[in-house]
Amino acid sequence: MKIAIDAMGGDFAPDAIVEGVAMAAKSGLPEGVTLVLIGNQPVIEALLAKYETPANSPITVFHADEVIGMGEHPTKALSQKPNSSIGIGFKLLKEKQVQAFCSAGNTGAMHVGALFSVKAIEGVMRPCIAGFVPQLAGGYAVMLDIGANADCKPEVLAQFGELGSIYAQYTFQLDSPRVALMNIGEEEQKGSLVAQAAHQLLKENRRINFIGNIEGKDMFTNKADVIVTDGFTGNALFKLGESFYNVARTRDIQDDFIAKTNYESVGGSPIVGVNGNVIIAHGISSALAIKNMINLAIRQVESDAYTKIAQALS
Amino acid sequence: MKIAIDAMGGDFAPDAIVEGVAMAAKSGLPEGVTLVLIGNQPVIEALLAKYETPANSPITVFHADEVIGMGEHPTKALSQKPNSSIGIGFKLLKEKQVQAFCSAGNTGAMHVGALFSVKAIEGVMRPCIAGFVPQLAGGYAVMLDIGANADCKPEVLAQFGELGSIYAQYTFQLDSPRVALMNIGEEEQKGSLVAQAAHQLLKENRRINFIGNIEGKDMFTNKADVIVTDGFTGNALFKLGESFYNVARTRDIQDDFIAKTNYESVGGSPIVGVNGNVIIAHGISSALAIKNMINLAIRQVESDAYTKIAQALS
Repeated sequence: MKIAIDAMGGDFAPDAIVEGVAMAAKSGLPEGVTLVLIGNQPVIEALLAKYETPANSPITVFHADEVIGMGEHPTKALSQKPNSSIGIGFKLLKEKQVQAFCSAGNTGAMHVGALFSVKAIEGVMRPCIAGFVPQLAGGYAVMLDIGANADCKPEVLAQFGELGSIYAQYTFQLDSPRVALMNIGEEEQKGSLVAQAAHQLLKENRRINFIGNIEGKDMFTNKADVIVTDGFTGNALFKLGESFYNVARTRDIQDDFIAKTNYESVGGSPIVGVNGNVIIAHGISSALAIKNMINLAIRQVESDAYTKIAQALS
Repeated sequence: MKIAIDAMGGDFAPDAIVEGVAMAAKSGLPEGVTLVLIGNQPVIEALLAKYETPANSPITVFHADEVIGMGEHPTKALSQKPNSSIGIGFKLLKEKQVQAFCSAGNTGAMHVGALFSVKAIEGVMRPCIAGFVPQLAGGYAVMLDIGANADCKPEVLAQFGELGSIYAQYTFQLDSPRVALMNIGEEEQKGSLVAQAAHQLLKENRRINFIGNIEGKDMFTNKADVIVTDGFTGNALFKLGESFYNVARTRDIQDDFIAKTNYESVGGSPIVGVNGNVIIAHGISSALAIKNMINLAIRQVESDAYTKIAQALS
């Protein structure tokens, strides 16, 4: 299993990225896993030495000449910089030279890059980004979309429920994930026009265990395994949830559950609905976040969720 | 100053409501303030005695025969039950027999009742509900809309910014409240189509101090005094924010800031943009929430914010 990591993407790249990879290697990787760092090879190798990466670590470096900056226009940058670390990452993923590609770089470029290279799974209307929301009683709920699609038609929203259900089934080994629609009240007729219409579509979908609406107050309380939302609402909610950790730190509070709301804890958010394992990390990703994202990538490759989604929709 | 309170609205009414009024009276009310409890007079009077309300408390009772239930259709209920506690509350408000009307009852009936009785201020496209969001460095931001309008046109959203700015100016004595648009990134072109369009309208409005976009992660961090959002996103965010208190309690954490996220702490949310002081409280309102809502109502009457809004728009 080869996990590719963009060494050049992110506010603290390449240092934090390489440090995170070194941390992952030192903490021990499963048998057969190799980490492929993509970017400026001499710089990366110097950093691997700086972070005292053990000599026998399963790490390789794939050189990339160019870098897509955080503020660059995604589509333009990808077409003009095919030899960027992101461009090369997707090339390797598409050619199945690696089984996952992760980056803390330009999110738009990661999303567009996935759509152009491994492409949307046939039948998926809009691939989306899934966030892991820690639950008080343990485990995580998958919330999607948390930012790729700000405006969603009802059928797209409803499909997120199905994609999320399959993802949760194979990632968390849940027989019948409870799927809920983020809304502003319990009743069916509550909410925006899109939410009301999506509610009906979700209700009619016999392939999922739709349990009805969920409100903001229950994002952490184990009411659902899959939380369906448009990318605008999802992004705002997810970021507010992550801020809980920052609030606690500002107040000198240390707590195991609140620590899970720290973005570093999971480390990344997968793109769901494309023919490959693609994981996006926050631009501000620290080494710890990168290390945890690598673990997430490994689990995602093992679960093979995207293949299951493709089978379900075929 | 007369503050009317619906004694019959809410999951724990009339007990919790009357207890809250008794608490407010015992803790001392400003000179000249009278609390008018509306509902079943004998029941209310018995409860006032039960909660050991001092004999000389400035509390009167106005009898109401009927009650609008929490699940009733707002418009139908209001037209069929003019002698409900909510119907009578708005009648008293419209006739200026009271200066504010508060209820933990049927939110839809409260909103529709306000629109029918005291009506929207001339020029206000859509009255909305404002939530107080505690800020880490102290004070509160006003977030609106937190639930009345799930779907908003860009011009409605932009107007929330102006209404909120005036409201904050006179409620918090801020010369130039910072107005921000809840969005999914800093850049102007980010977000849903409605958010992008609203951003431009807010930018062009010389009457407000528009500081740009704000993300979910900054809801508590003193980035803005007024947070503009559609009612769907606002409701989800506001309820998630309130849940921080519940999460902390579940984890046995006590903290002064997190305690402010407890819905009881402020006690209510005003309807902004109608010709009168109307405050809505959570259905689950406890006595403490009611007590604090009364204080909020008093401050709102003193600030006379709605008159200022009417002047600004005329």
